Amino acid sequence: MTALQPLPDPIRLAVDCMGGDHGPSVTLPACQAFLAQHPQAELILVGRAEALAAARAWPRCHVVEATEVVEMDDSIEVALRKKRDSSMRVAIQQLRPKEPQALLAHACVSAGNTGALWAVAKFVLKTLEGVDRPAIAAVMPNRRGRFTTVLDLGANVDSTAENLLQFAFMGSALVAAVEGIEEPSVGLLNIGEEAIKGSETIKRAGELLREASAAGQLNFHGNVEGNDIYKGTTDLVVCDGFVGNVMLKTSEGLAGMMGDFIKDEFSRNGLTKLAALVAMPVLKRFKRRVDPRRFNGAALLGLRGLVFKSHGSADAVAFENALARAYDAARNRLLDRVQDRIVATLQAAGNTSPVATAE
Amino acid sequence: MTALQPLPDPIRLAVDCMGGDHGPSVTLPACQAFLAQHPQAELILVGRAEALAAARAWPRCHVVEATEVVEMDDSIEVALRKKRDSSMRVAIQQLRPKEPQALLAHACVSAGNTGALWAVAKFVLKTLEGVDRPAIAAVMPNRRGRFTTVLDLGANVDSTAENLLQFAFMGSALVAAVEGIEEPSVGLLNIGEEAIKGSETIKRAGELLREASAAGQLNFHGNVEGNDIYKGTTDLVVCDGFVGNVMLKTSEGLAGMMGDFIKDEFSRNGLTKLAALVAMPVLKRFKRRVDPRRFNGAALLGLRGLVFKSHGSADAVAFENALARAYDAARNRLLDRVQDRIVATLQAAGNTSPVATAE
Repeated sequence: MTALQPLPDPIRLAVDCMGGDHGPSVTLPACQAFLAQHPQAELILVGRAEALAAARAWPRCHVVEATEVVEMDDSIEVALRKKRDSSMRVAIQQLRPKEPQALLAHACVSAGNTGALWAVAKFVLKTLEGVDRPAIAAVMPNRRGRFTTVLDLGANVDSTAENLLQFAFMGSALVAAVEGIEEPSVGLLNIGEEAIKGSETIKRAGELLREASAAGQLNFHGNVEGNDIYKGTTDLVVCDGFVGNVMLKTSEGLAGMMGDFIKDEFSRNGLTKLAALVAMPVLKRFKRRVDPRRFNGAALLGLRGLVFKSHGSADAVAFENALARAYDAARNRLLDRVQDRIVATLQAAGNTSPVATAE
Repeated sequence: MTALQPLPDPIRLAVDCMGGDHGPSVTLPACQAFLAQHPQAELILVGRAEALAAARAWPRCHVVEATEVVEMDDSIEVALRKKRDSSMRVAIQQLRPKEPQALLAHACVSAGNTGALWAVAKFVLKTLEGVDRPAIAAVMPNRRGRFTTVLDLGANVDSTAENLLQFAFMGSALVAAVEGIEEPSVGLLNIGEEAIKGSETIKRAGELLREASAAGQLNFHGNVEGNDIYKGTTDLVVCDGFVGNVMLKTSEGLAGMMGDFIKDEFSRNGLTKLAALVAMPVLKRFKRRVDPRRFNGAALLGLRGLVFKSHGSADAVAFENALARAYDAARNRLLDRVQDRIVATLQAAGNTSPVATAE
């Protein structure tokens, strides 16, 4: 891939200020902190008028009103058909404004519920030309002190080998844009036992990835196993959404359990509480290294617009990180990068007229 | 299921003393410790004559010689076709001795390589009547201070809904025998997003499990997600082997990374090392709670004999735990329990003459 010039400032993010478990009490402070860290950035704050009243005076901020809110337990049906003026939907619409004179957002961030966000984003933006199935990507920390990007995390089940190949292209574009690694190494998640080879789909995906790598379209490392995600064996790990979702939730569950066990043991009695006091600075440093807030912000890839999903329970620090990831993605032209890789592949495959697969 | 009377002592285990990364230097001390804890148990120690010379004098031990050893990196081909007198194979053969006067082992334990053990066990023992696909089950610690049993962990990929149902039967038998929970709750591993329902296979498996639960054949809780394994939402979690293997390896990777991070932070400088000294008793208690040695010993289910697989890198404490799990399984008639559940289901389905599916 040829290196792309970054998009000139101002980069503008549309923020669903009402989404998530905490709404404006978290999103607004996060926006302020983000603006302080990104002196060239602009924000389009979307939400209820009364919730955003104070923000109208903020520099580099534009308020767009939306009268409804998609709640965390709202069904997709409700988000899609009933709440047509939700902050989530209006925020996404800022990526493709209907009025020609409207301000254009380069990326959108929401902490709203995943199913609804996914459905609304697909409906409003449509799928990018040549992409068969959009996917969700996020980063996990690894032993190398960096991040491993993993996709798909649950947008697709029963992915085909061709889907997995496209995930590799889209993921490579994401890692290049956000992590700054132009040709990230790609691992295909598989199981390692010699006895028990991967499924036919995985084997076929391996062949496609090897071919693409040989053609210089991506940097395929080979098969990786579950533990390689945390080892940081490759920059990117590609898998079916069912597997990726189980992997993600399992990791959250295990990390949570280990954290609770540490807390339990240090608060067992007076002596252990004293030990906790002494060990506090060390424990804090440890906590920082595995702090999920640091890697908040999953990318919805393959749509005709950049949407980032913050964890619903995100606090201001976490939400600010999601904003920062979205900013980096927009600035480094993630959308063009995805499009370039997909189009290049289609052309290489002799299909020079990609057909839009609007749903 | 009717409660089964425990098998009368002596319960006899066949031990592949040569298997694993460390061989007799780990397995023999583990056997001694196990015998001390289980005063009625007997062992059949299998391995090279010179390695087992000292053990010939041990009470309640019988030495059976085997001239070969399946190395950790031997292929299945080598284990199956070349090394016909391996300690692994001879140990498994003690479950179905050819000579009528030979001592019968009730279960076999090996730390040898999984692929080889799996292939040799299937070849020597054959599949149990009515079982379509044998599976591997292991336990993970959970927040409730108990264990969650999970299968399949990698014996099968592309499992059908019917396979998943059988895993639930076999796993229920295992939990009843080893954990002492007669009607364990069963969770079907799925992904939680409303938007993105599980695959067709998972949906169909859910139906089969609900029907079996309604017929009183098992205790189906419903769908669970990855984090439920560590919450301990259900006693048993059923999944395809690809997903289970990724889950297991991911967990090992994450736990290892978190452990390393804790070590890193406490050994950073003199001050943090001092903090480590103060916090040592607390850290040790924490370590014990997540110590993988405590839950060593995976069950190979669905074969005509009980085989337990120890982690290859197990130390004596871990290997002793695998022996103890195999002992409990044998004593509480795991084989009969699996057979009973499978036969009962076949009969309920109108198939009163189960056909052996020897491979």
